[in-house]
Amino acid sequence: MSDRSGLKAGNGKTSAWCMHNGWRWPEGLSGPAVETKVKQQTLRKLSNGVYVLTARCADRYGAATVSWVSQASFKPPLLMAAIRRESNVFKCLTASGTAVLHILSDRQQEIARRFFSPTHAGGGTLNGEPFAEGRTAAPILTNLPAHVECQVEQIVDTNGDHALVILRVIAAQCRASFRPLTIADSPWEYGG
Amino acid sequence: MSDRSGLKAGNGKTSAWCMHNGWRWPEGLSGPAVETKVKQQTLRKLSNGVYVLTARCADRYGAATVSWVSQASFKPPLLMAAIRRESNVFKCLTASGTAVLHILSDRQQEIARRFFSPTHAGGGTLNGEPFAEGRTAAPILTNLPAHVECQVEQIVDTNGDHALVILRVIAAQCRASFRPLTIADSPWEYGG
Repeated sequence: MSDRSGLKAGNGKTSAWCMHNGWRWPEGLSGPAVETKVKQQTLRKLSNGVYVLTARCADRYGAATVSWVSQASFKPPLLMAAIRRESNVFKCLTASGTAVLHILSDRQQEIARRFFSPTHAGGGTLNGEPFAEGRTAAPILTNLPAHVECQVEQIVDTNGDHALVILRVIAAQCRASFRPLTIADSPWEYGG
Repeated sequence: MSDRSGLKAGNGKTSAWCMHNGWRWPEGLSGPAVETKVKQQTLRKLSNGVYVLTARCADRYGAATVSWVSQASFKPPLLMAAIRRESNVFKCLTASGTAVLHILSDRQQEIARRFFSPTHAGGGTLNGEPFAEGRTAAPILTNLPAHVECQVEQIVDTNGDHALVILRVIAAQCRASFRPLTIADSPWEYGG
């Protein structure tokens, strides 16, 4: 079980292997638990960025590191984001109808890590990161190299464990060239 | 205008620059056309993978390279994908209710390029790539290292120029470790 490199099954025929946690098994060998693990492992191969999403309703702030985000339209410019329903940032963006998605550079893992924790606002900072006012109620984290300010277009009702939020980009700013932080660059996997 | 490295505005104060096509301007300088370009440039900093999506309805096949894809739920396992409405693959997946999303390795740019072209089926291949039958009507491209077979859960009505498709993962296969192809690794930008 220690050879992870090959695509040869034990019968000598070329075949695909499924792998999980250092174990591997030929495609034919399956069962509900194995299938669930293979689905999880395969879905981890999707490429995702690392972002910080912020929102505010009245004097309550929400800010969280998120990963399940993609553009969804050019005209109008739309994003789709899958967000934990119980998160503070989701509650704030649904109440206020606005949010800011920040893109981190590949040197800003520590900033991403700060927003794994519950949101704490104080002294012009969120979780220690300074913020400024933008066009909407949602705060802009000024140390991050790019962000888009958004209006909530729609919260889509799915049977999933995350809310699907459609955001319309109403303003954007980006600094000079930087390499965006991705999940693949990081030591993390998104666990929900 | 040739110095792209700094974050200093002409007045000596530290400030953010917006950049496009080799030109740069301080954040304050704006206008509708500039704003549109800044939005586009910022959205290009979102991290995306490169995938091939396939579907079949009766004897008609659709297969296309797509990029605007993300997971959207763990339980049940859902994907969200923004797909061109006029594409063959979109017509086939709406008609059949099933699709397969394939993940490419970083050495498979040439395969991704093949599915920029209209779908051509013949001799057990799609655009020259061999395929096999899976659990659904949608074809599985056998040279690609991972794929998820999906049922269409929902087509979300947005005002965007792409359709938002919610897919439920019903089966998955992945081969031994590989590095997924990303837009950032490729010479391409997704142009819709």
